[in-house]
Amino acid sequence: MGKTLAYKILENHLVEGTLAPGEAITIKIDQTLTQDSTGTMVYLQLEAMEVDKVKTELSVAYIDHNTLQTGFENADDHEFIKSVARRHGVLFSKPGNGICHQLQLENYGKPGKTLLGSDSHTPTGGGLGMIAIGAGGLDVAVAMAKGTYSLTAPKVVKVELKGALKPWVSAKDVILYVLQQLTVKGGVGKIIEYTGEGVKSLSVTDRATITNMGAELGATTSVFPSDENTRLYLKEEGREEDYTPLAADPDAVYDEELIVDLDQLTPLAAMPHSPDNVDSVSNIGEIKVDQVAIGSCTNSSYMDLMKVAAILKGKKVHPDVSLVISPGSSKIMSKMAQNGALADIINAGARVIENACGPCIGMGQSPKSGAVSLRTFNRNFKGRSGTLDAQVFLVSPETAALSAIKGVLTDGMTSGEELPKIPETDFVPNDNFVVYPEGCNKDNTEVAMGPNIKPFPRNTALPEKVEAKVVLHAGDNITTDDIMPSDSRLLPYRSNIPHLSNYCFEKIDAGFSARCKEAGKCAIVGGENYGQGSSREHAALAPLYLGVKFVLAKSFARIHRSNLINSGILPLVFENPADYDTFELGDELVIENAPQQVTQDTIEVKNLTKDLVYKTKPNFSDLEQTMILKGGKINAIKDN
Amino acid sequence: MGKTLAYKILENHLVEGTLAPGEAITIKIDQTLTQDSTGTMVYLQLEAMEVDKVKTELSVAYIDHNTLQTGFENADDHEFIKSVARRHGVLFSKPGNGICHQLQLENYGKPGKTLLGSDSHTPTGGGLGMIAIGAGGLDVAVAMAKGTYSLTAPKVVKVELKGALKPWVSAKDVILYVLQQLTVKGGVGKIIEYTGEGVKSLSVTDRATITNMGAELGATTSVFPSDENTRLYLKEEGREEDYTPLAADPDAVYDEELIVDLDQLTPLAAMPHSPDNVDSVSNIGEIKVDQVAIGSCTNSSYMDLMKVAAILKGKKVHPDVSLVISPGSSKIMSKMAQNGALADIINAGARVIENACGPCIGMGQSPKSGAVSLRTFNRNFKGRSGTLDAQVFLVSPETAALSAIKGVLTDGMTSGEELPKIPETDFVPNDNFVVYPEGCNKDNTEVAMGPNIKPFPRNTALPEKVEAKVVLHAGDNITTDDIMPSDSRLLPYRSNIPHLSNYCFEKIDAGFSARCKEAGKCAIVGGENYGQGSSREHAALAPLYLGVKFVLAKSFARIHRSNLINSGILPLVFENPADYDTFELGDELVIENAPQQVTQDTIEVKNLTKDLVYKTKPNFSDLEQTMILKGGKINAIKDN
Repeated sequence: MGKTLAYKILENHLVEGTLAPGEAITIKIDQTLTQDSTGTMVYLQLEAMEVDKVKTELSVAYIDHNTLQTGFENADDHEFIKSVARRHGVLFSKPGNGICHQLQLENYGKPGKTLLGSDSHTPTGGGLGMIAIGAGGLDVAVAMAKGTYSLTAPKVVKVELKGALKPWVSAKDVILYVLQQLTVKGGVGKIIEYTGEGVKSLSVTDRATITNMGAELGATTSVFPSDENTRLYLKEEGREEDYTPLAADPDAVYDEELIVDLDQLTPLAAMPHSPDNVDSVSNIGEIKVDQVAIGSCTNSSYMDLMKVAAILKGKKVHPDVSLVISPGSSKIMSKMAQNGALADIINAGARVIENACGPCIGMGQSPKSGAVSLRTFNRNFKGRSGTLDAQVFLVSPETAALSAIKGVLTDGMTSGEELPKIPETDFVPNDNFVVYPEGCNKDNTEVAMGPNIKPFPRNTALPEKVEAKVVLHAGDNITTDDIMPSDSRLLPYRSNIPHLSNYCFEKIDAGFSARCKEAGKCAIVGGENYGQGSSREHAALAPLYLGVKFVLAKSFARIHRSNLINSGILPLVFENPADYDTFELGDELVIENAPQQVTQDTIEVKNLTKDLVYKTKPNFSDLEQTMILKGGKINAIKDN
Repeated sequence: MGKTLAYKILENHLVEGTLAPGEAITIKIDQTLTQDSTGTMVYLQLEAMEVDKVKTELSVAYIDHNTLQTGFENADDHEFIKSVARRHGVLFSKPGNGICHQLQLENYGKPGKTLLGSDSHTPTGGGLGMIAIGAGGLDVAVAMAKGTYSLTAPKVVKVELKGALKPWVSAKDVILYVLQQLTVKGGVGKIIEYTGEGVKSLSVTDRATITNMGAELGATTSVFPSDENTRLYLKEEGREEDYTPLAADPDAVYDEELIVDLDQLTPLAAMPHSPDNVDSVSNIGEIKVDQVAIGSCTNSSYMDLMKVAAILKGKKVHPDVSLVISPGSSKIMSKMAQNGALADIINAGARVIENACGPCIGMGQSPKSGAVSLRTFNRNFKGRSGTLDAQVFLVSPETAALSAIKGVLTDGMTSGEELPKIPETDFVPNDNFVVYPEGCNKDNTEVAMGPNIKPFPRNTALPEKVEAKVVLHAGDNITTDDIMPSDSRLLPYRSNIPHLSNYCFEKIDAGFSARCKEAGKCAIVGGENYGQGSSREHAALAPLYLGVKFVLAKSFARIHRSNLINSGILPLVFENPADYDTFELGDELVIENAPQQVTQDTIEVKNLTKDLVYKTKPNFSDLEQTMILKGGKINAIKDN
């Protein structure tokens, strides 16, 4: 029986377990990456584990989230991360160097390697034929310390690409179409593997756009074959020697299958407020646009921005549109500053801001009240732009640039405009990573702890009897943005859980934090796909700090479930989803004989207030059982 | 008797009064400018005056302060200003187009013209031979509505420049030297006029750096002759037809005189926390530098940044330094993106952020805790960087760029490094100002009022008896930053006085706002040079909102004094400065027969608590008396 590409790579990295869907496995991790908004916790945890040098082939600490620096907090975090990186042999990428996923793709991604990153869009590396997985910070810290990562082996979905894209249709439209078909929970527990003749019509950065937004499907990761386009990309990046051809066996067997006919696609947009709320641009119509934002780890590659520059060249941004562009890396910006494309962008009246995540994470460029904002980004959750009543549409760079000129949402295919041709260009290697001539080790660097950097909260061993009061009864598809809001006001506090916890669930229920403090011991009840979105473990650490003991839900998103377990909080799935409806705020719950029940297939949760007993499925692997019993991953590792 | 250049220009614009130092005069205003952080109030006031088209030759509304957009507030302000500009025929410059003073110099400044701007660094235009004055927003609104501005005719100080600057010494060092000699209150009530053979060795942008920071002397404005360098600058900007040669008469008589021997200057730095705390870089020594910030209306011209690019070319920013560059205008950035200089900057590892005021006003790029930050800016007041314990040094672009590479404060003259030569380049006109093909008028635009835009507070006519309780006893050199703090947290609320007022005097005395609310009617006691710094009228409007009736001080800074009078708050100067020492918080003060006393040379203020009577000098012109009696300028104009 032929093998899928995903399983070939996993097999090459298998350390423990049986490689079959649903089985607990441990794999070797070749590379890790962190960004700064999750990274401060990762490195606090790494320090707590008292490791010396990291065990991976390459670990990189990027700074791309908190770069506005509206107070000392951001710069202190950068300094802290730089100091810890230097102590443990982690490569440091200064703010301004660019967005982690774009930089990792350009400089370090290698076909066939594994990459674990403390950012949900780590699967960007799948565009280069990597198994690149987003995880909670602690998992990444452990991967650095031990070189391994444990997960449940996913199913593999085949997405067969037929034909080729028409002008004005691009990779973004492919993934928007897949999101329309599969929805934001369609990828849970799965790897999305792209195959078919259409693959060869997509460049590596096109592929990376698609695998990046595989995160929005809830997928473990997404992967493309490594082929001639891969070789060309690596050659352009000055590292052809990193190329290896990789593909699934012709007779590979997949768990599911979707066919995408590229010829049939038209420009698409994800409408407010979910990446899977997709319709065609022509169906949505020529709505007036107030802001257009181009960039983010999804669509800030050199070719993306060259297409934008070509569309803008000699044109003017509409007077009523604010067009803002954040390139993916300093190398891209430098190249475009050399070949005239950046000047074309500026002369058209675009605003050019720093190479960073920026507006995609609500870190600046919030649109005006009630604005329609077209963004080439990957998420359009309500309020994520920083403007609660903004209407954010996710579109391709081509649709974004053309609409910025026209002042209305515009379908390039039917606009009568010709899509300009883009010249090919060679790259030069990025040499802006920090290198210390005197080397990096624990002895020549003190940890730099600014006053806003607080220790991460630690759990204690699971007691015999887990008591908790229901403090929240939430709906379906709760995002980690809902749990731990993340905007320009709160991002500077990512190193400060006590402060952050005051804003936990703030947008959904302003009384949450106070209610937790009053209850002391708390439980959350959620619906389907609880914890989708960003990988931030702050969505587990803030509830931990507030006394949350367990979460009952119809289903959990993968990364958040791991983050809960890493923190010693029990994620429990209802055997009978209808139980969800029986809860009220304030219900007194209890799990008796908890340590014993954790090792069983079913955990009973009693509702003392309602006199009901619920059966829940923990689905814990052996390793997860240990973490729950010890009160989290750090405790489990320390005791081992 | 020969005339000074300053008085020649004033004479050409005299509308009312006798042109002699200390006399009240009214002059015609040819041009106005506003920026967004003061502009929202200006345009609220313009709307309140119900004017149709502005009466100036040219009025421009720039957006350069609040461009981070960490919430809807900034973008709503931009939209409001754009809508009002369109209604009244004011030219609108979108965010990203650049910094107001740089753009005004590049595009609209003309020798011999008058310019009034709602920003204290408006004197930048003096580099082109203009009389360019910073004023409170209401004065600028009235100048737009009526085409005139009233002020006390200043003395004129001659600064004679001899010789020429040596390599590594530049215009910034000239003004730092003048600040060292004259101090931050040395220019109060004066125009600084530059003459001498050394003038011709300075380019227009060099001169603009010097006149810009004349604001730090407290001067009404600063002015350079218009000569061959002026013609060349205007030619480069594509508008040679705007050139007129202008100079003082050879036998002009000045009120004071200072000689600066350019040959003798070395690289200087203003040390924390005042622009006049100046010493030579070599005396200060090679202190370790954490951040270097290049840009601002003082030092962000094309030639400034070309010098920086040449110094950085082929070098690397020190690993422990964060170098951030904010170009002055999109035209500069575009030009440098075309000639390779921007690529040189990026390749060296600098961070390039949007063309805007940015870090100079604490709007982003706050350094880490306790950092040493070298900045090419004009103010280093404590906390202005957004980091309260940062040590900010003001330096030239040359010193900044070289120190960024070395990692320590470095004197170029003694460094052994050769200063690279800069190629000459032609400019292209900036065509990124908003033009509506259908024209601008009141009828085709609604005023766009976002939810954060609140009406400005209005005073009432002066009562017979003005009672007030002392709510603050402040020291010397209180800045408008002290009165109304301005950072990334508060700048988004510049359209919302009720919100801002909660933070009035926050850094000096956290209880101030609450104490005012309790007292109801309030008085402030200050020392010398009360209200220096930025032109923000929020430093008068917030106290007005909080019930401040009068301010007693040893002396007042010019713009703030006007802003107080415009708001109907009495600025009163002690006849006997020793009276300052007799006050305590809570003292009950009263001015009896206030309307009558206002027209006298002396106003008596009784301290009921201490049983003392103070004699104070109002120094009110007739116009100012009217404003005080009516309760502010808007009331005076409405009643007229």
